[in-house]
Amino acid sequence: MDPAEFRRVGHQLVDWIGRYLEDAERYPVLSRARPGDLCDALPSAAPERGESMDAILADVERHIVPGLTHWNHPGFFAYFAISGSGPGVLAEFLSAAFNAQGMLWRTSPAVTELEEVALAWLRQLLGLPDTFEGVIYDTASIATLHALAAARQEAAPAVRERGLAGRPDLSPLRVYCSEHAHSSIDKAVIMLGLGQAGLRRVDTDDRFRMRPDALAAAIADDRRDGVTPLAVVATVGTTAVTSVDPVPTIADLCERERLWLHVDAAYAGAAAMVPGREDTLAGCDRATSFVVNPHKWLFTPFDLSAFYCRRMDRLREAFSLTPDYLQSREPTPVRNLMDTGVQLGRRFRALKLWMVLRHFGADGMRRRLAEHMRLAQLFAGWVDASDAFERLAPVPFSVVCFRACPAELADDRAALDDLNAHLLDGVNATGDVFLSHTRLDGRFVLRLAVGHIRTTERHVARAWELLQEQLTKLRR
Amino acid sequence: MDPAEFRRVGHQLVDWIGRYLEDAERYPVLSRARPGDLCDALPSAAPERGESMDAILADVERHIVPGLTHWNHPGFFAYFAISGSGPGVLAEFLSAAFNAQGMLWRTSPAVTELEEVALAWLRQLLGLPDTFEGVIYDTASIATLHALAAARQEAAPAVRERGLAGRPDLSPLRVYCSEHAHSSIDKAVIMLGLGQAGLRRVDTDDRFRMRPDALAAAIADDRRDGVTPLAVVATVGTTAVTSVDPVPTIADLCERERLWLHVDAAYAGAAAMVPGREDTLAGCDRATSFVVNPHKWLFTPFDLSAFYCRRMDRLREAFSLTPDYLQSREPTPVRNLMDTGVQLGRRFRALKLWMVLRHFGADGMRRRLAEHMRLAQLFAGWVDASDAFERLAPVPFSVVCFRACPAELADDRAALDDLNAHLLDGVNATGDVFLSHTRLDGRFVLRLAVGHIRTTERHVARAWELLQEQLTKLRR
Repeated sequence: MDPAEFRRVGHQLVDWIGRYLEDAERYPVLSRARPGDLCDALPSAAPERGESMDAILADVERHIVPGLTHWNHPGFFAYFAISGSGPGVLAEFLSAAFNAQGMLWRTSPAVTELEEVALAWLRQLLGLPDTFEGVIYDTASIATLHALAAARQEAAPAVRERGLAGRPDLSPLRVYCSEHAHSSIDKAVIMLGLGQAGLRRVDTDDRFRMRPDALAAAIADDRRDGVTPLAVVATVGTTAVTSVDPVPTIADLCERERLWLHVDAAYAGAAAMVPGREDTLAGCDRATSFVVNPHKWLFTPFDLSAFYCRRMDRLREAFSLTPDYLQSREPTPVRNLMDTGVQLGRRFRALKLWMVLRHFGADGMRRRLAEHMRLAQLFAGWVDASDAFERLAPVPFSVVCFRACPAELADDRAALDDLNAHLLDGVNATGDVFLSHTRLDGRFVLRLAVGHIRTTERHVARAWELLQEQLTKLRR
Repeated sequence: MDPAEFRRVGHQLVDWIGRYLEDAERYPVLSRARPGDLCDALPSAAPERGESMDAILADVERHIVPGLTHWNHPGFFAYFAISGSGPGVLAEFLSAAFNAQGMLWRTSPAVTELEEVALAWLRQLLGLPDTFEGVIYDTASIATLHALAAARQEAAPAVRERGLAGRPDLSPLRVYCSEHAHSSIDKAVIMLGLGQAGLRRVDTDDRFRMRPDALAAAIADDRRDGVTPLAVVATVGTTAVTSVDPVPTIADLCERERLWLHVDAAYAGAAAMVPGREDTLAGCDRATSFVVNPHKWLFTPFDLSAFYCRRMDRLREAFSLTPDYLQSREPTPVRNLMDTGVQLGRRFRALKLWMVLRHFGADGMRRRLAEHMRLAQLFAGWVDASDAFERLAPVPFSVVCFRACPAELADDRAALDDLNAHLLDGVNATGDVFLSHTRLDGRFVLRLAVGHIRTTERHVARAWELLQEQLTKLRR
């Protein structure tokens, strides 16, 4: 692509994206595409001759955009609402142009060192001590996988050299987390060769928090049965209900039992930077490792997961290996990102986190997070004040779990589930908002997650209005 | 960031990036930063108040750019030279703005379906059959990890449920690859709990290709010793020398032995689309899984690794699990990307591959790849014709392994290594080119890898000129 053409198309794109970021509300937030629509619309083979960017971008507008669920729509309240802010989007543009690959320090010193700088900034904002070394991964799934790999390295003798299979000297290994912990922990234990039996999900209390007494009992049971406890994963902000496990008590237990403590604060960790909410991460300074996702609630475009670890040496011990073709030639020792994990290639992700933190400043981040929590409380208040709805979990952060529960159906579990499922589909079909659902104690539950940088009170009010309207329709 | 400011800064960035892509040669290709330079230059804490984008971008220019090794410089000949083409960079900009996350079909149908379309296009261009289902990962390291996880799922009974540890019913498991296979295979077997002992590196012949007789003997040995063979990883284009393992013979063996055959064609797979070079992937249609990296030699910005598998059901069997909060509500079954691996979140990577393939067309891709191979042959010819240099491996693709070998040092191994190390440092210090090195049979070897989209004969000639100049200096 010649430079003039790059500039011409680039300027056009800036205007298009500017309009998109400004006014994503002109699109339905949940895509209305049917399965196969896009596959059917596009040719089944690459063109033989190159095509013009104008033709390609016209197809983006015509075929791709209708197939998007607009994570950038301020009415996106599903899962955890994430948003790539303006400075983050521009940083990704720059990063793509640099195309730097940070496997070694020398393959771009700035990639390695800006990662160090940006992660130190974030660590301070969260109130974590500098005994934590940081590294950026793509997702929390990969961060947790590495945390548990490091824990395995610590607990299973010679596992790097000899593995786990066919070893009479090894007993089964076990990881512990709560019933509400994320599915990535299941996937991690499968990958690591611990099997799903290698994960024990511990009971939670009436506020969906891991019960430390149940954890202690599980560990004691396992030790008695000849199973080797490996690590505990505590969650700060579980995915369904954003509950917070009692990390200080769990940390006591892990110290006593000499177990690796990994804290999954992928979503809610960010809240700790808000004045008055520092307690969010109470006890996390004593964790062995910790993950928080700036791509969730810190306005950084997907993907960027920040992993902090007090035993990064264990991770290096597990994975560091340098073939001849990757030997460095620096006279002094340098930090090479490839040593901290499976992925050799590392994208220049730190740039967007650094630009986002600078653009908003600590104060700007705190204010936005506090406002999201205010909006969630506001919505929770409406639910609580309503006769037709009920709230089903505490609201510690920016997610509200609730359902319609009109008096006439209060005792009919199946009918309530059915009503709420239809309510969800009806609200999402409007295109103005997108909510997701989960199940709590078997009940179908709606979730409203605030997290988009351009979500305002108006959008939350619109969600509430649509829920009431749809419910009225369904009750007719 | 308000829309007007986004546009103002965006337009400024388009011009800056346009100039950067056009004229990266004004920077030294290998960064001259010293360890700690960037960390020392930046504040140790995030700013309290937000800063202007002008101030931030000025710091990018002042502090970040000098810390970059310019993968975008046409004199980048190190490792595998990769390049993000104009359409790829613009696609990443769009993708960051959409910020779509493709864990489920419904979280953006276009992410899932464009991935299917783009991977089908690429598969056809490579001449692979449509029995291969594709999925995009970040890196080949992750692709290979998943390939071997699926192979383990097939070979080790109930491994998903029960894991590997403390199981007297399981014998040690083994994966096979050549001495020249990539280090990501070591990392994969470590992660999977097979241990480094779970990987056997098979001898290569005088052209650095896996010896099928040695492979057969290793498998037979292992079976005799009660070790369970799991998978063979064959490489098309090894990292150091780009040798090609005899895949058809290895495929015969794998069929006979009922072993999973994974082909790592991360770099060289692309060559198969060049007329006359279809044999590059001979036998790969019989592989169980296959990985090629469009971010390597297909002008797609980092990261995008294309994984193809004939047994994706095995991978799903290993990793598919759907918590309540991720249940879909589609009336018909849809393909959810989260089912094919550990990472729940999936970035919209397909957009850049699709835009690159359309912009260049099949013909444009082929011509560029052919030209890179021509340039490598040209350089190899210069080496071969020189008295002072020697070539140390065949040049099947776009990488030349060579060294200075002046007559006066021909018998002094240590002196030759030392000379070539200094030669490399001297050439790289000029800032005009960046070459990397490896070791072959213990000897220090220089590598010239052609792969950047803007590399022309002039750049290759400049590398040759600098090598000769530096050698003359060093021989003085």
